[in-house]
Amino acid sequence: MTTYQLHYWPTIQGRGEFVRLALEAAGADYVDVARLPESKGGGGSALGDRLDDPDIVRPSFAPPFLIDGDIVVGQTAAILLYLGPRLGLSGVGESDGLWTHQLQLTIADVVAEAHDTHHPISTGAYYEDQRDAAVQRARAFREERIPKYLNWFERVLQRNPAGPSHLVGDVLTYADLSLFQLVDGLRYAFPKAAARALAATPAVEKLHDNVRRRQRVHDYLQSPRRIAFNEDGIFRRYAELDG
Amino acid sequence: MTTYQLHYWPTIQGRGEFVRLALEAAGADYVDVARLPESKGGGGSALGDRLDDPDIVRPSFAPPFLIDGDIVVGQTAAILLYLGPRLGLSGVGESDGLWTHQLQLTIADVVAEAHDTHHPISTGAYYEDQRDAAVQRARAFREERIPKYLNWFERVLQRNPAGPSHLVGDVLTYADLSLFQLVDGLRYAFPKAAARALAATPAVEKLHDNVRRRQRVHDYLQSPRRIAFNEDGIFRRYAELDG
Repeated sequence: MTTYQLHYWPTIQGRGEFVRLALEAAGADYVDVARLPESKGGGGSALGDRLDDPDIVRPSFAPPFLIDGDIVVGQTAAILLYLGPRLGLSGVGESDGLWTHQLQLTIADVVAEAHDTHHPISTGAYYEDQRDAAVQRARAFREERIPKYLNWFERVLQRNPAGPSHLVGDVLTYADLSLFQLVDGLRYAFPKAAARALAATPAVEKLHDNVRRRQRVHDYLQSPRRIAFNEDGIFRRYAELDG
Repeated sequence: MTTYQLHYWPTIQGRGEFVRLALEAAGADYVDVARLPESKGGGGSALGDRLDDPDIVRPSFAPPFLIDGDIVVGQTAAILLYLGPRLGLSGVGESDGLWTHQLQLTIADVVAEAHDTHHPISTGAYYEDQRDAAVQRARAFREERIPKYLNWFERVLQRNPAGPSHLVGDVLTYADLSLFQLVDGLRYAFPKAAARALAATPAVEKLHDNVRRRQRVHDYLQSPRRIAFNEDGIFRRYAELDG
């Protein structure tokens, strides 16, 4: 059996969490390398070194990246594209696989926008130094973008010919897991705005509940392997950004 | 032979341009539907209607989307993932296809950041109403992000075992075409900053020149099918954002 190596920052959920959830939900054998002790190659510093390793012919721009034997693949959505068929998480056939990926890319777009609510000017500057712009951007995100995206996912679920329990057909895909994570993150960062939007998107809320209750996901969420949300990650709870 | 239907806003290059370039470079048979006369289904209004068509079981969140028989696929990178092997633009085998896609996703990240230089607060508000934040965000983009991204692409080209003429092996892929378009857009929107960054990334600059000189690309760029850059698109030239 393959042991996948996941390489991602060890103290945040971040974008790596979408990969962790897929590996956990499938019961895959994997090592979250940067979370090992430093003596075993763990730590953020070793991760940075590995990212900059000049011997990697196809380097990733940023974590997360996944190593599977000779394959090194970066970009969250590309990692999931690679893992999907191997873990049985991308539906049935090319058409489902493509649709699963399209859903993931749209989730990635929301995630990038959620990040920029607290860093609207520069990822290289402190939140405190861009708070005024953050307050403005977060307002637009809460009022326009969260409802627009969640309404679209609601529509996708409602139109699914196999029923609204899954995004793709009637099986679990990485898109379901990622939508769970998106909703979880929005609820953490924007509890008031997320509650308002979810009240209008019952199938999205139900999917979140269903995914959370799946045995492997449930076990993972209760385990120390699940890092808690915190203010170094993508979804950050700052009272002034919710409302 | 398949006739692909591309659906995208008719008056801008935008994200649709990455798809147009792939179709053009491959000599594919396609219709740019929204650019047809209104009597033949063209126009932005018909595009909006089509996007909201309740009969589409797998709706796209936004343009562009591509229709190929029964397949409807949205999200620029997913469209290219679909077209890549069909147009011979994703290298050889799964590994090249995945790497081509990873490169495309990183280009998509830069493109989103380029967009946000003029809309750092809200896509729903006018540029003039977010100009102060735009000036700040554009400075960080010019000073930190453009060099970081272009240096990474330079590294990818320099490390390519087949030589620095292409991103993936020794054949043209949609990643090459998209990097051409990214450089073209950065040069339009940020002429000074792009010139500075490109002076340090000669292989990226050379790839841009090589792609532009390919016969089909050259013919396309000279044709009325190539929409000029303008201030409704993603890459916008505002003097106060360059420097």
